[in-house]
Amino acid sequence: MNLSRLSIIGVGLLGGSIGLAAGARLSSCRIIGYGHRRETLDRALEIGAIHEAANNLGEAVKDADLVILCTPVLLFEETLQAIAGFLKPGAVVTDVGSTKRSVVEAAARLLPRHARFVGSHPMAGSEKRGVEFARTDLFESALCLLTPTPQTDSAAVELVENFWRALGMRIAEMSPDEHDAVLAEVSHLPHAVAAALVHMPEAESLRLCGNGFLDATRIASGDGGLWRDIFLDNADHVKAALAKLRQSLAEFEALLTPGKSEVLRAWLDSAAVKRETLVNERLRNQE
Amino acid sequence: MNLSRLSIIGVGLLGGSIGLAAGARLSSCRIIGYGHRRETLDRALEIGAIHEAANNLGEAVKDADLVILCTPVLLFEETLQAIAGFLKPGAVVTDVGSTKRSVVEAAARLLPRHARFVGSHPMAGSEKRGVEFARTDLFESALCLLTPTPQTDSAAVELVENFWRALGMRIAEMSPDEHDAVLAEVSHLPHAVAAALVHMPEAESLRLCGNGFLDATRIASGDGGLWRDIFLDNADHVKAALAKLRQSLAEFEALLTPGKSEVLRAWLDSAAVKRETLVNERLRNQE
Repeated sequence: MNLSRLSIIGVGLLGGSIGLAAGARLSSCRIIGYGHRRETLDRALEIGAIHEAANNLGEAVKDADLVILCTPVLLFEETLQAIAGFLKPGAVVTDVGSTKRSVVEAAARLLPRHARFVGSHPMAGSEKRGVEFARTDLFESALCLLTPTPQTDSAAVELVENFWRALGMRIAEMSPDEHDAVLAEVSHLPHAVAAALVHMPEAESLRLCGNGFLDATRIASGDGGLWRDIFLDNADHVKAALAKLRQSLAEFEALLTPGKSEVLRAWLDSAAVKRETLVNERLRNQE
Repeated sequence: MNLSRLSIIGVGLLGGSIGLAAGARLSSCRIIGYGHRRETLDRALEIGAIHEAANNLGEAVKDADLVILCTPVLLFEETLQAIAGFLKPGAVVTDVGSTKRSVVEAAARLLPRHARFVGSHPMAGSEKRGVEFARTDLFESALCLLTPTPQTDSAAVELVENFWRALGMRIAEMSPDEHDAVLAEVSHLPHAVAAALVHMPEAESLRLCGNGFLDATRIASGDGGLWRDIFLDNADHVKAALAKLRQSLAEFEALLTPGKSEVLRAWLDSAAVKRETLVNERLRNQE
């Protein structure tokens, strides 16, 4: 794809990895980074994640063909407000947020008519935080969810899609609401459950856990501030997912009796099969 | 340690790994295996996990200094009944079960006075099943929980402790009931939760999950039959742990409002810190 000027707002793990990957894959693209901490920008320059560090948001997005918001979710609205007046005609804006309704709504409300927004959620990351963990291959083979609405410009969707594909990603499209409902089930609630599982036992008991528990709760080591924002932004869908989980656990509890032994086994076996199917599909996609 | 004859009842992932590790670490020890499927025994002989395959339980335990029960939890009682008449005076019997009250009670009831039982739970394994996944280093640096009671012979505890230490394990002791209560929280309930998380979403939604979800649900790929037995054997403690989880999730749900933003963040951060502390401790233990 042809992209002359890319602007990355927020140069942490994701923003930094986007810069590294875009630098490697799109050789003629100039990459400008902005972040509120100078030392982060210096580190991003040092590892080659950005070519230039901007001193403010206006400078960061001026003349950019594509602007990617990589700040925490709850900062999107004020960032959109701050950049709105500086976007060039035809500029495309996207983001990497884990929730999509709020940013899509805010962009429609705040950006000028001559700029175009497409919501993105690249499903890559780690429980690590900061540009020092940025990796050129973070996005390779991973899935990126785009959330265009009927009002979204189709040429802008194409540009954003081509950008993520250039970074090695697979693409799926869905509505912002569908995205937030699905992610509540497969990402946000599992995070809360992992935290609850860590909170439950006394520290003494926790010491007796095995590797299975450590894997099951790895996501609970993620950044509390980022996740707080996600939970507050997607509270309604997270509550709905929580209600579904309660029902599933109630079904399980009703099977804890010798008379239901075969049903309990079928419940456990079918979860194992469903997960293995998923893992095998994933492995095929990565081939 | 000095052990002439070791008998392994059930030569799957755990039994096979015990055989491999004991063969490597206790050079003068003769290892006899028994399993109800001949092909499993042949495979165990082939990979060197056992020196001899016994044709029946009596033959398997005759003359053994240490007998280790490695069958599924709900088969312990009938196995103890079947071997009781063949144990030599002074023989020590242990097991590798994930629940401890039932086997300790059954051994006290079924074994002759001249044999001595000590409950063991080596906290090692994988979601894999079968002797073909057996590994010599499966137990290295892992924790083994012993559950002696006031009636347990202390020389037998020492022998069992030395055996697991010879395989590279760390040892902790607790009562059978304490063991089952703690394991319900740090192992059994997390398994049920992982299965519930896999069951919840439609297959289409599940395809959109990230690596965090796959890690969080890895334990749900474990063998349904083995886990069914564990859940039925420890149903009371699993129900108590489930009640605690419900309370923890209700606390979380009450924080899903902007007014509780700081408390929500503290809840998430403290889970992250608690887990990181645990991981760091674990790493130090493996050094």
